[in-house]
Amino acid sequence: MAPSSTFTTRLSEAARVVEEALAALLTDKTAPGEIARPPRLMAAMRHAALGGGKRLRPFLVIEAARLLGAEGQGPLRAGCAVELLHCYSLVHDDLPSMDDDDLRRGRPTVHKAYDEATAILVGDALQTLAFEVLADPATDPDPAIRADLVLGLARASGLGGMVGGQLLDLSAEGRYGRAELGEADVRLLQAMKTGAILTFSVEAGAILGKADAGTRQSLVAYGRALGAAFQVADDILDREASAEALGKRTGKDQEKGKATLVDLLGMEGARRECRRLVEEAEASLDSFGPRAQILREAVRFVVERQV
Amino acid sequence: MAPSSTFTTRLSEAARVVEEALAALLTDKTAPGEIARPPRLMAAMRHAALGGGKRLRPFLVIEAARLLGAEGQGPLRAGCAVELLHCYSLVHDDLPSMDDDDLRRGRPTVHKAYDEATAILVGDALQTLAFEVLADPATDPDPAIRADLVLGLARASGLGGMVGGQLLDLSAEGRYGRAELGEADVRLLQAMKTGAILTFSVEAGAILGKADAGTRQSLVAYGRALGAAFQVADDILDREASAEALGKRTGKDQEKGKATLVDLLGMEGARRECRRLVEEAEASLDSFGPRAQILREAVRFVVERQV
Repeated sequence: MAPSSTFTTRLSEAARVVEEALAALLTDKTAPGEIARPPRLMAAMRHAALGGGKRLRPFLVIEAARLLGAEGQGPLRAGCAVELLHCYSLVHDDLPSMDDDDLRRGRPTVHKAYDEATAILVGDALQTLAFEVLADPATDPDPAIRADLVLGLARASGLGGMVGGQLLDLSAEGRYGRAELGEADVRLLQAMKTGAILTFSVEAGAILGKADAGTRQSLVAYGRALGAAFQVADDILDREASAEALGKRTGKDQEKGKATLVDLLGMEGARRECRRLVEEAEASLDSFGPRAQILREAVRFVVERQV
Repeated sequence: MAPSSTFTTRLSEAARVVEEALAALLTDKTAPGEIARPPRLMAAMRHAALGGGKRLRPFLVIEAARLLGAEGQGPLRAGCAVELLHCYSLVHDDLPSMDDDDLRRGRPTVHKAYDEATAILVGDALQTLAFEVLADPATDPDPAIRADLVLGLARASGLGGMVGGQLLDLSAEGRYGRAELGEADVRLLQAMKTGAILTFSVEAGAILGKADAGTRQSLVAYGRALGAAFQVADDILDREASAEALGKRTGKDQEKGKATLVDLLGMEGARRECRRLVEEAEASLDSFGPRAQILREAVRFVVERQV
């Protein structure tokens, strides 16, 4: 099913305002409380964070907040924070000692365009900036909301979330001893590495929209199912797509002997699992009725994306 | 002048409770909101953060807070956050593409004891945990204080602070083209790389102690002078000390052709500057009278430390 024109308009509008806001955050001009901004670092940070991507995570923040009546600077800034965090993880994951990638979205990775030390610092500074953006009063006048956002992003991205998942992913290559992953291990790894931040993106919208506990829980359930669907779809895509279409190397998981859900469930089983997760995500939105149409389309978009 | 017994008792007591609190934060047991903690990552994080150091930064948080009547979990947790941030910066600075150090406090650095990928992830996760600790309600029931702490740490440690300073430090080696630093450049670099976090440590105590604007400003001025004194003393030490006494390579700045204040002011000039900064730090505490005796001793301790 093709996405509605409302959906595609909202998605590209979110990408546009996020790009603009990120560019404003990453200028050479110092912000209050800063001593100076080294131009080389700023240029490399812009290389890492600007000019690319669908901005899916900010889109989820913005649309989940909108569903609850919250719009404007808050969701935009929280969306930028999640995107900065996501970009930091890409820069560090691409490093020679990690996944060793030369290309990202068809452009040289940061350590290729600059150097390894700069790339490490770029990732470090993007992470810090994500938390700075969330804690800044410009994001929300209510400090309880800002502290809640910081705590949620930290839990989703740290040792018990994204970074822990990346360590498990490296272990899955057999770097740290023999590794044979079962279905439960692969699901855990994916929930940590990519799922936690996607789930938090939706939860951030709930926090900004001052959702009650039940509403927040429904949105978190939606985010979890969407995150899992995203990763199964990614495994399927990795197996199928051509290097040209993706602008990055593919079949990499196979190359490294890493088990994916496609190995464990078979291609048909993975497709079935993907459809099941889409339905689960949609069902989590039932209580919102037709107002949640954009989020329903989002999960379908996530599994059907070709780039 | 030898430090008072009150001072040495307080310093070692702070180190003890901080060590204990850090160990509790870095267990293998998952915290609320986390999916799982990979044991290898946790062991490497403990290697990076436990069992060493004077814990100067937490000590400053704790003593600045105590001066304003704040004690207990708040200053302890904020002190742990600053120490986690400091440890992350050491792990990343030691990496082969950065300062390429094999030893830290006489023990193998994280990338030597584990591997480079793990060391990058350890630094990443230590940074995240620092922000998580600050944003957690256990640090202070008032979310405005928690958000203020997060914002302050982010500004001190990000692109306009510590990480920016590390980039300038790498540039000072001539990596990114010819670099001839004057006195102003060296002072800027040091204020960013090490000064900002030391200053924030003192400011965190002011935030937790609910200081009024003038009191907070006095403590920030104290922290700035202390941070600058720390760095001049470090430059002097680097030139003088033997490798055995320090447990790390010394004379490194000279080796890499990096200008320090000792080069620019001469040894005697650097010693004079150090004394001037100590007096400036002490003068910033005048309004507190004898109650600030521990902080006065702290700045003298910082310039006289032999390890």
